[in-house]
Amino acid sequence: MSEMKFATGTWIYGTVGDRYLLSGYREGLPVLERIKKMAGIKGISGIEMIYSADFDGGLDEVVEAVHSAGLECSIVGVDLTGDPKWKYGSYSSKDPKIRREAVELTKETVEAAAALGSERINIWPGEDGHDYPFQVDYSESWSLFRNCVSEVASCRPEVKICIEYKLREPRVLSLVDTAAKAVIMCQETGMENVGVTIDVGHSLQAGENISESIEMLARTGRLFHVHLNDNYRGWDDDMALGSVHLVEFLEMMYTLRKVEYAGWLSVDVYPYREDPAAVVAESIEFVNGLDALVDRIGMDTIDAALQNDDPIPLLSLIREATLG
Amino acid sequence: MSEMKFATGTWIYGTVGDRYLLSGYREGLPVLERIKKMAGIKGISGIEMIYSADFDGGLDEVVEAVHSAGLECSIVGVDLTGDPKWKYGSYSSKDPKIRREAVELTKETVEAAAALGSERINIWPGEDGHDYPFQVDYSESWSLFRNCVSEVASCRPEVKICIEYKLREPRVLSLVDTAAKAVIMCQETGMENVGVTIDVGHSLQAGENISESIEMLARTGRLFHVHLNDNYRGWDDDMALGSVHLVEFLEMMYTLRKVEYAGWLSVDVYPYREDPAAVVAESIEFVNGLDALVDRIGMDTIDAALQNDDPIPLLSLIREATLG
Amino acid sequence: MSEMKFATGTWIYGTVGDRYLLSGYREGLPVLERIKKMAGIKGISGIEMIYSADFDGGLDEVVEAVHSAGLECSIVGVDLTGDPKWKYGSYSSKDPKIRREAVELTKETVEAAAALGSERINIWPGEDGHDYPFQVDYSESWSLFRNCVSEVASCRPEVKICIEYKLREPRVLSLVDTAAKAVIMCQETGMENVGVTIDVGHSLQAGENISESIEMLARTGRLFHVHLNDNYRGWDDDMALGSVHLVEFLEMMYTLRKVEYAGWLSVDVYPYREDPAAVVAESIEFVNGLDALVDRIGMDTIDAALQNDDPIPLLSLIREATLG
Amino acid sequence: MSEMKFATGTWIYGTVGDRYLLSGYREGLPVLERIKKMAGIKGISGIEMIYSADFDGGLDEVVEAVHSAGLECSIVGVDLTGDPKWKYGSYSSKDPKIRREAVELTKETVEAAAALGSERINIWPGEDGHDYPFQVDYSESWSLFRNCVSEVASCRPEVKICIEYKLREPRVLSLVDTAAKAVIMCQETGMENVGVTIDVGHSLQAGENISESIEMLARTGRLFHVHLNDNYRGWDDDMALGSVHLVEFLEMMYTLRKVEYAGWLSVDVYPYREDPAAVVAESIEFVNGLDALVDRIGMDTIDAALQNDDPIPLLSLIREATLG
Repeated sequence: MSEMKFATGTWIYGTVGDRYLLSGYREGLPVLERIKKMAGIKGISGIEMIYSADFDGGLDEVVEAVHSAGLECSIVGVDLTGDPKWKYGSYSSKDPKIRREAVELTKETVEAAAALGSERINIWPGEDGHDYPFQVDYSESWSLFRNCVSEVASCRPEVKICIEYKLREPRVLSLVDTAAKAVIMCQETGMENVGVTIDVGHSLQAGENISESIEMLARTGRLFHVHLNDNYRGWDDDMALGSVHLVEFLEMMYTLRKVEYAGWLSVDVYPYREDPAAVVAESIEFVNGLDALVDRIGMDTIDAALQNDDPIPLLSLIREATLG
Repeated sequence: MSEMKFATGTWIYGTVGDRYLLSGYREGLPVLERIKKMAGIKGISGIEMIYSADFDGGLDEVVEAVHSAGLECSIVGVDLTGDPKWKYGSYSSKDPKIRREAVELTKETVEAAAALGSERINIWPGEDGHDYPFQVDYSESWSLFRNCVSEVASCRPEVKICIEYKLREPRVLSLVDTAAKAVIMCQETGMENVGVTIDVGHSLQAGENISESIEMLARTGRLFHVHLNDNYRGWDDDMALGSVHLVEFLEMMYTLRKVEYAGWLSVDVYPYREDPAAVVAESIEFVNGLDALVDRIGMDTIDAALQNDDPIPLLSLIREATLG
Repeated sequence: MSEMKFATGTWIYGTVGDRYLLSGYREGLPVLERIKKMAGIKGISGIEMIYSADFDGGLDEVVEAVHSAGLECSIVGVDLTGDPKWKYGSYSSKDPKIRREAVELTKETVEAAAALGSERINIWPGEDGHDYPFQVDYSESWSLFRNCVSEVASCRPEVKICIEYKLREPRVLSLVDTAAKAVIMCQETGMENVGVTIDVGHSLQAGENISESIEMLARTGRLFHVHLNDNYRGWDDDMALGSVHLVEFLEMMYTLRKVEYAGWLSVDVYPYREDPAAVVAESIEFVNGLDALVDRIGMDTIDAALQNDDPIPLLSLIREATLG
Repeated sequence: MSEMKFATGTWIYGTVGDRYLLSGYREGLPVLERIKKMAGIKGISGIEMIYSADFDGGLDEVVEAVHSAGLECSIVGVDLTGDPKWKYGSYSSKDPKIRREAVELTKETVEAAAALGSERINIWPGEDGHDYPFQVDYSESWSLFRNCVSEVASCRPEVKICIEYKLREPRVLSLVDTAAKAVIMCQETGMENVGVTIDVGHSLQAGENISESIEMLARTGRLFHVHLNDNYRGWDDDMALGSVHLVEFLEMMYTLRKVEYAGWLSVDVYPYREDPAAVVAESIEFVNGLDALVDRIGMDTIDAALQNDDPIPLLSLIREATLG
């Protein structure tokens, strides 16, 4: 890619825990300290923030800190999982009061993003979905969700609304679970500024081919944002990129060029036990290495190889370029 | 459901094999014999046929046999996997000659269906997809496929074209892998007579909630046909319905009523080692039992329960009704 | 089973959270209050406790409370996940100081169990395993773990040491991941009082057949304890028993009788959003219903059916008995 | 590894089909032609054969052909899946006549291996297991299987009996499904010449860490043979090595050295659509590249890294060595 812009999220310096260790593997840092530390990670020029958790000290304070640190805000995510009130959903909650709170919080997130000079917000609706059979009216959930997103998207059409799909977790099955479902949701809102964040780990977890999903999102005009991490396909492990997969991530770099993606590449990892900066920096170096490898192999060579159905010759080229 | 119509497919009496036993666990019967035996399975009033394999003796012969047996033809499936020429895809093949053959075969299938009095054909494009990373141009595959389906759907708008999605097998990842992807494909063809066959085993394999997919398909006007079987979620095991799951299939029966599905319920099993008639008959009895259970619990009771977010009370009702 | 004894764990009334909501879906209750509430759940006569979290107020206090509540202590689990010091393992930690702390804590757990009149402790070593490739020396981890268990088991041979295997979570892959691996661990300790807790949800998650694992554990003399819950097979969802599966749990009840299991059936659920008592009570009623169903069908009938390879006739019997 | 010996199996030139294309993607070659072609694949010095299919023309003919081609026979596999008579199991069949046939066929396989100068036979019992709940008596199946293996192993103690475990396929769940289960089976036979073939694709499918399984097999003295291929973890896709994974296969090469494995590395792929020779040759080059990479990084460096719990520094080294 001609110029890659890397970001990461403030949560890497948060209280990283799991259901068996709610107090966390380490203590979360105050947001201003997180911003400073993120600016020091090699390769990082952008920061992803969470509204409202990261803004407890006021919007001005955050704007000032991000600018002072020499960072751009890539996106602001609205927090729809960090409070038990969302336990049965946010935009799809059966309770109109909860839906209203979710919409208002999202509108504030749009304003925070605008104040930070970011042109997009991230919606990851982790609590919208279900756990048990016979728990929700699926059509009703879908409509309620769609209507809320439409309302949110209408208030500032110049801000891009990015829906991050995920197969599951924390709910056993999410309402917006795959790239294709996310596209349908976007289209049904009737708004051009509603698109998709593809988290490549979520894509692996959902059994998708990452590049195929990226192409579908680009083709339908909905590829708005990219989250990077790796896993073993069975769960959203949020590991350093390159710790498990290589060929598919190389294909992803090829595909991002092909669809002329010019947005952020945001390293969304969850370093339970590792040094957050090391995990992010290593992931960025891996992407840089892959991008250079696409150059070495050549876009034309790959384009040509895809016209032959036979994957082995290109695998040989990749092997020679990586293992000598 | 007010009146349920059950069908099954001629393949249950075919040469049932796997990649380690290509000669099969049993010998396939001649198609006329299959038709007779299927008519004798308790509960069966419809028959699914495969074009062209089942029509080698001529169309008239089959029409006569189906009618004599007192069966209706629920659907005719076009065979896009039974010849090595499809190995890199049918409608999405890079070879225009192959695509042409696929389209022509499908048009003949439409004619065969019409001759049999069936108003729908089934397209399960098992070879359209990919195995390796860097094997196909995903956007090109998608467009080629869509154009072929459009052409096929245009020739007889009164015949419904049903695309059966499946996550994988025989290809490692199918082009049309989930219900949502299938909906997008249907919409992009621009044809109202293109819809979806939901095979509930494929839905489980893809990590979907069956009822949620049925509702999405109904909401978008694309619920055209239903295939029934059971599995352990990791693969398309094509087992007798009810051998693994109960609650989700009960929910499915509730949902089919809710969306007022009035089409066929076709038992699509693959009895490698079991008696085909026994597997089909047992599956039908299971569905009949579930349908009666929906009555005993009551649609209204279920509707009301879905307004509460709490799944336990309804689970208790189901348990009491099944285990006493 | 002639007389079934049901227990559940104090964690059902704890702060139930996930990695996105570390503060929890609800506030945890003080342990004495938990004990009282558990005694009030229909069908519960046993209580599972966690050492040391549940014993902060002293051992006597707990003993008194359990007895006053009319409960028996089924087992005491040692907490090897609730502190960041275990993040790279407990018994398999490379740090001898950490291993020593794990062993000492476990010995205290043995004493606590003895004081409570329980004859067994539970070891669920959630942090022993790895996340990344190239992270641990697998043989070293195995040996360190085994040696610690041997030491613990030697101190009071009359107390049963129950190792609860689990495929993964919180680590990406656990050291003791399957029933078979657990058997090997038990055998290598050289101690007869080391056995296995089978959590049937873990068994499903690991891709096992629950009954097959129970038989293997019984055959090798290592079936020491049983945890009950349900899930969708891809993750340890810890749901109410019967919400997803029925036939396999019926087979489990048959198998538990066959191997003459006379221990506790402990409902190990994680009711993030549901009423804990309702989830436990419903699970117990489900088991009671299944057990009665085994009687209705008859052990002899099942024994005979298993001599025929054909699963359909027994499925028919089960369907008739449940759906009429 | 000091000297790596690569083999592959005659099935790569067989009729490669699937359940939808029983006639195959290509026609199988006569065995003598297969042998000649395999000898021409770059890097291949060993050949895996199947008894009795590959020996239809007589033992002498095969011995002569293998020697003329300059190949060694790495192993002879007994065919326990290619006939419908095995449909309910071979060694674990309830029918004593079937078990006897399985044992006799295996004894003949031992003789064929001896005649070919191979010191091992491969047992992949694909039909031993079950599909449905309530289908088999698991303890009975286990004992019957074990007794047959014991008998087979006793007849020529100098020939190694290698049991190839696999999670599933063609049965829905195999009797010997994981490395740990295979170890228990070996131990229960009471024979030292019974060990395990680890097919690394089966290991991925079973959710194992390949290196951890190799170490366990080596530690228990049961690492007898290695099959190489790649997949996406959800199924035994039998793809070219390196098409999906890299880091874990690098770890595998490190581990094979560490445990001083000196046996064959047999490329067990299933090239449905690809050129068999190309898939095998590419897999071998990939392994050679990984082996050289272990040298470049250094065994000592890896050993040292494993003492730190932190996986990131070694991932950085691997990235630098592969992507520059």
